[in-house]
Amino acid sequence: MSGDDDVPLILTWDDGNSGLLGEDDPDQADGNGVGNYDNINNVSIPGPSDSRAQSSLRHSWEMNYQEAAIYLQEGENNDKFYTHPRSALALSAYLFVHNHLFYLMELLTGVLLMILSLAEAPAVPSLRLDVYVHATLELFALVMVAFELCMKLRWLGFHTFIRHKRTMVKTCVLFIQFTEAIVVLVRQTSHLRVTRALRPIFLVDCRYCGAVRRNLRQIFQSLPSFIDILLLLLFFMIIFAILGFCLFSTNPADPYFNTLENSIVSLFVLLTTANFPDVMMPAYARNRCSCVFFIVYLSIELYFIMNLLLAVVFDTFNGVEKVKFKSLLLHKRSAMRHAFQLLVSRQRPDGVSLKQFDGLLRFYRPRMSARDRFLTFKALNQSGTTMLSLEDFYKIYEVMGLKWRARRSGEYWFDDLPHTAFLIFKGINLVVKSKAFQYVMYIVVAVNGVWILVETNMLNSGFSWSRFVPWSYIVFLTIYGVEVLLKITGLGPVAYFSSGWNLFDFSVTVFAFLGLIALAFDMEPFYFIVVLRPLQLLRLFKIKQRYRNVLDTMFELFPRMASLGLTLIIFYYSFAIVGMEFFADVIYPNCCNTSTVADSYRQVNVTIGNRTVLEEGYYYLNNFNNILNSFVTLFELTVVNNWYITMEGVTSQTSHWSRLYFMTFYIVTMVVMTIIVAFILDAFVFRMNYSRKNRESLDDPEDEKGIVMEAEVLQDEALQTLDLYRHTLAGTNLSSLQEMCVTMERNRHSSLVFLGRRSRTKSDLSMKMYQEEIQEWYKEYSRTNLPLPEGLHRDLDAPVPHRDTPVPHTCPSQTIN
Amino acid sequence: MSGDDDVPLILTWDDGNSGLLGEDDPDQADGNGVGNYDNINNVSIPGPSDSRAQSSLRHSWEMNYQEAAIYLQEGENNDKFYTHPRSALALSAYLFVHNHLFYLMELLTGVLLMILSLAEAPAVPSLRLDVYVHATLELFALVMVAFELCMKLRWLGFHTFIRHKRTMVKTCVLFIQFTEAIVVLVRQTSHLRVTRALRPIFLVDCRYCGAVRRNLRQIFQSLPSFIDILLLLLFFMIIFAILGFCLFSTNPADPYFNTLENSIVSLFVLLTTANFPDVMMPAYARNRCSCVFFIVYLSIELYFIMNLLLAVVFDTFNGVEKVKFKSLLLHKRSAMRHAFQLLVSRQRPDGVSLKQFDGLLRFYRPRMSARDRFLTFKALNQSGTTMLSLEDFYKIYEVMGLKWRARRSGEYWFDDLPHTAFLIFKGINLVVKSKAFQYVMYIVVAVNGVWILVETNMLNSGFSWSRFVPWSYIVFLTIYGVEVLLKITGLGPVAYFSSGWNLFDFSVTVFAFLGLIALAFDMEPFYFIVVLRPLQLLRLFKIKQRYRNVLDTMFELFPRMASLGLTLIIFYYSFAIVGMEFFADVIYPNCCNTSTVADSYRQVNVTIGNRTVLEEGYYYLNNFNNILNSFVTLFELTVVNNWYITMEGVTSQTSHWSRLYFMTFYIVTMVVMTIIVAFILDAFVFRMNYSRKNRESLDDPEDEKGIVMEAEVLQDEALQTLDLYRHTLAGTNLSSLQEMCVTMERNRHSSLVFLGRRSRTKSDLSMKMYQEEIQEWYKEYSRTNLPLPEGLHRDLDAPVPHRDTPVPHTCPSQTIN
Repeated sequence: MSGDDDVPLILTWDDGNSGLLGEDDPDQADGNGVGNYDNINNVSIPGPSDSRAQSSLRHSWEMNYQEAAIYLQEGENNDKFYTHPRSALALSAYLFVHNHLFYLMELLTGVLLMILSLAEAPAVPSLRLDVYVHATLELFALVMVAFELCMKLRWLGFHTFIRHKRTMVKTCVLFIQFTEAIVVLVRQTSHLRVTRALRPIFLVDCRYCGAVRRNLRQIFQSLPSFIDILLLLLFFMIIFAILGFCLFSTNPADPYFNTLENSIVSLFVLLTTANFPDVMMPAYARNRCSCVFFIVYLSIELYFIMNLLLAVVFDTFNGVEKVKFKSLLLHKRSAMRHAFQLLVSRQRPDGVSLKQFDGLLRFYRPRMSARDRFLTFKALNQSGTTMLSLEDFYKIYEVMGLKWRARRSGEYWFDDLPHTAFLIFKGINLVVKSKAFQYVMYIVVAVNGVWILVETNMLNSGFSWSRFVPWSYIVFLTIYGVEVLLKITGLGPVAYFSSGWNLFDFSVTVFAFLGLIALAFDMEPFYFIVVLRPLQLLRLFKIKQRYRNVLDTMFELFPRMASLGLTLIIFYYSFAIVGMEFFADVIYPNCCNTSTVADSYRQVNVTIGNRTVLEEGYYYLNNFNNILNSFVTLFELTVVNNWYITMEGVTSQTSHWSRLYFMTFYIVTMVVMTIIVAFILDAFVFRMNYSRKNRESLDDPEDEKGIVMEAEVLQDEALQTLDLYRHTLAGTNLSSLQEMCVTMERNRHSSLVFLGRRSRTKSDLSMKMYQEEIQEWYKEYSRTNLPLPEGLHRDLDAPVPHRDTPVPHTCPSQTIN
Repeated sequence: MSGDDDVPLILTWDDGNSGLLGEDDPDQADGNGVGNYDNINNVSIPGPSDSRAQSSLRHSWEMNYQEAAIYLQEGENNDKFYTHPRSALALSAYLFVHNHLFYLMELLTGVLLMILSLAEAPAVPSLRLDVYVHATLELFALVMVAFELCMKLRWLGFHTFIRHKRTMVKTCVLFIQFTEAIVVLVRQTSHLRVTRALRPIFLVDCRYCGAVRRNLRQIFQSLPSFIDILLLLLFFMIIFAILGFCLFSTNPADPYFNTLENSIVSLFVLLTTANFPDVMMPAYARNRCSCVFFIVYLSIELYFIMNLLLAVVFDTFNGVEKVKFKSLLLHKRSAMRHAFQLLVSRQRPDGVSLKQFDGLLRFYRPRMSARDRFLTFKALNQSGTTMLSLEDFYKIYEVMGLKWRARRSGEYWFDDLPHTAFLIFKGINLVVKSKAFQYVMYIVVAVNGVWILVETNMLNSGFSWSRFVPWSYIVFLTIYGVEVLLKITGLGPVAYFSSGWNLFDFSVTVFAFLGLIALAFDMEPFYFIVVLRPLQLLRLFKIKQRYRNVLDTMFELFPRMASLGLTLIIFYYSFAIVGMEFFADVIYPNCCNTSTVADSYRQVNVTIGNRTVLEEGYYYLNNFNNILNSFVTLFELTVVNNWYITMEGVTSQTSHWSRLYFMTFYIVTMVVMTIIVAFILDAFVFRMNYSRKNRESLDDPEDEKGIVMEAEVLQDEALQTLDLYRHTLAGTNLSSLQEMCVTMERNRHSSLVFLGRRSRTKSDLSMKMYQEEIQEWYKEYSRTNLPLPEGLHRDLDAPVPHRDTPVPHTCPSQTIN
């Protein structure tokens, strides 16, 4: 039975063209409660000669494959099911919106809108554009956004669209920006455009910035408890401000507490320690006991309540991480369940055959070769039958990312070479893999490190580029070069480059070589490469297990860290725009002579005793004159030290209310930074717990390489599959499958084992960590949902997406997302 | 059977005087493997007329009670069993050493030695003493320490003494200090006495500083992983220092990177952010791209590796806390098992009778009244039989701290008053307990807060004490006074003062009142009390559950925080001594004109443009001229901001090597501070998990009051007990028991219920948190130990402390301590 005549259990996006699937026969429902799907019974045994029915049936299957693929995609991206396309029209919009070209367009539009502020007044000098140029660019980008929104409206339908909060906010912001851009174009000059601070919304909303959206959500989730503790902090601040005012305002030499406002500002800054011990000094000089006030204040506020803030955020974080993992997992599970239902046929409702599975993958992973689709099926099919059960199918996300390769019969890449060459390479391989070689290299690196240190230390007269090609540089570079060559030849290029550490070695060595060339040919702009040499020393950290763990975790965390960094940059951007609108060009040398921080802005000849020196306070450089300067200034504010100098400088040139901007920024960065700390803490504690729990498996070198799966393919099977594919998919590219068959033929193997590999993700770790709890969740999940496969028919009572069943698709897992 | 003739199962510290218990009859061992205890069989049925045997028996029992009490004490204090006294001589030394008078002496000696540094050169001016006075005082204190050590030697025995590491270190330090004190006395002048930095050892070793010792141990446990990450930190620092030197040393205006040493120091300081953004400014002014170097450095070092440090310490901390709790719990359990064995008699080996239990408590808690001893027995005796089983006995630590009071028959304290008074008080009670009253008070407090803020804000001319008795002060104080009076009368003084919040209200109100009196009578030194008024505002935080939780946790944490503070002070002390020895009097106004931080030390008339002002850099106040100044300076170094100014100032007056002192101090405080942060994090996360796990029980008002236990006493029982006590303990104070009987008689109650209360400790919380795991631990524990009570006889095979069995007492739980 080839399954050619199987009829899908559920039909989707039925556009009414297929006469066979008309709903003109409701009386034929056989009373088992399956409802309007029963008419499928009528068409389940079409004659093979009935080519119209055949093609219509194929069309239905294709539609089902597509919808199943969409479900899997939704599960993967954590898209809610209520945005699932419900009609053929919505489907075409959905397909238009969900592809990388469109995503890229979204991203570019968002980035373009943001980088426009480089060119808008106050612009970076070298990038300044005329008003009509940048306003036109902006209008163009906004039109693109409007187009994207229209496509989304078409896909989601009007009702879902206006219920989707993020999209509505985006629409409003778009409207405002549009109006403003036109006003700018008409007036030919920029007005006070604070609303530009909202531009990051366009970037955040785009598909590729999902991680940023998650971070923002996490920040908002932590906010309520954060604000509670913040109030406690501010409350103590105000109590101490009153006390401080009462105690120290009688001292005329104390400018920090002379009014209540100054008192509050001083203690706010003291919270960040930025004005300590200066703020204490006048009072301390007068009465030594006054240090008690400051010590108590700092102990309560800085060392207790600030840590409390971290504890609260960490706790929220900790709880949320698990809940999020759970909801994601269950969302994926129900996505897989939906997809499974769409792939089974009326004849065999509890299994997915290779043909259907292949159909799914053609939509879900269009770039996957026929061979890999077949291997994925084999990997899932643990039971060895011809069908995938629901339990098998539940593993689909785990096998999806695997890269398949035939297991090499030999151990080394040079197995097929002639004997002499083999022996040479074998020797190199042994050398390269030996402990001794490794330790020799460590010693070389260490010696190199000491050498660099000593050499640099001897350059007391200052570093000069031109005479800096010492022989040691060449010697060590040669050693590293030889090492890289040996390793590549010994291990084979593929094995060599599959290790992150080797890649690191390689790139550092290549950079050093490029630096040497730059020096030799006097290419000045590339000199900086030379200074990267000391990075070689990082290799020393491979020696100890703990460092390997730390660095591995660092690499694992990198994507998440990057998204947190991006989130921070988005906050920066908004604050930078506001700062530029209000504080551009208020700071210049000698600007703030009336303020308490005048020294830091002074650029003047000063006479001390009988000497005259040029004293330069560089702080006028920390300004908001253009967006790049603003970013640097904001970074300095983030680091917190001496931030009050910038604040007081700007305040002295504008009004007292400017402090609000700086204080708000401090609190916002405090939130984000606390989240970052909590995130790092959580990730590392998780990782350490994990490695404690799975000590043996982490030490296992096989496990370090990531997730590995096996699939054995028999020759008969392969030929059969090739046949099947030729039959069903005439015209598509089957070369990968053919090649596999040819390989088996040539090597006279009756079977071939394939290995699928992928790197381990956080989700894999979590799966292992919460193993027992996951079983609980699944049990709970299947208790609230109807059991499958026995319950499949009963499950059909629940409305499913179908043009003809307009009842919204009430998926039980919807609420947990 | 009154149990008068019971013979102890085990005999302890048998001093051979008791002829009955001689070991002259080894042949009579009945072969069941109990060994030399079997001779007890021979004396188990002495004739009641044999008064010599009777008294000897009583003596043996008394000895057993004492040893059992010592075991319980050891369990409570986590003293290892190998220090258990093994002979009558050791016992007397043990008893001498283990009492509060001796502990106090230890403490005072330690404190005396430490505060001597106030008077030794360089002394606090007002406390300076002659050399021979402070040297004599020091010698005296050291002789005291020597005496304590002698007593300890006598108790522990020579072998245990020299194996006890802490004691040996103490002895060595004592020896050094002694020699030095004599040298000082002979030369009549202090030499370079850096060893004084070791003085805190005497304080740390004393009994009352157990918490500090635990903290130090925890710090040392976290050190290895801490140092690993620290190396990573320093490694990146050096790599960046080399890069920085190469990049920026060509800039003559940049003093931060002109040599490799300066480069390293600048980046070390930058690690603490103290010189940011100044360190960046010269490079930034020259080339805007150079900010990338600093941003990357800070991102890696400050935001990543520093957090990693916290993560590692937090993780270690987290793990250690649980292990410590487990080992403490099992240690207590084996202490209780040992005590139990000493209290059972040969006749009834599986239960402890009231008489024996009472005997134990007479030694274990000498101050406890007879009534409370009896009630404790009743509380333990859950089964209702006349004996305590081992299972009952295992709860002894939980009931030990209970404060017993008879349950009041009525609800209110004024129940016994005449009817009119009752009605009045009842009315007040209802008012005081009503929500409305509470909220009115909150509103009053809030209004008061706003009032104070507004009033203070209007004093722009500066605060002056004399004219500061505004009418609002009197009005609000009256309201608070009335509230306190109403509450005390309505709730009764006992109920009122048992709540921490009420105590807080009361003391703030009393202070405000005292402040008013001080103002009225013009007593200037007490004016500061007036400024404590805003503390009333703290009451507002009672409104929200989260704040109550936070503040309760704060109070729960307080003892632990205090011990951490003390630990920090001990580190401060050592560093202060070293600082004073090397840097005393090197800092003075205008001292550091050659350094880069000259401005901060300058006290000079400066001409800027055409104005002349006195510019005062107060940093010369941050010196090491005496121990108090040193402490303040070290606190400023702990807060980190601008610490490099102090460092550079001292360095410019001494040598480059001084930086080592400051950098070491920074790293040490970083360790301690990280531990403090980890501790607060851990405690709060624990508390939050706890309250999540027991949400209902925390909201339960009964539970908030702490641990409550009930014991019902019948009249017959009470009389019987009184009789028993009169019989056995002639001459001791039985008034509490008699009073109880009289009360029952007078009120004609046939029974009386007593409530025992104590506040909840961390250990109670942990018990509840780890409930399930504790059962596991117990199971494991009883698997490795022999089961009781069936196994009691078998257990006797194991050597027990006994003069005649000199085999060291190998308690199985010893290894886990």
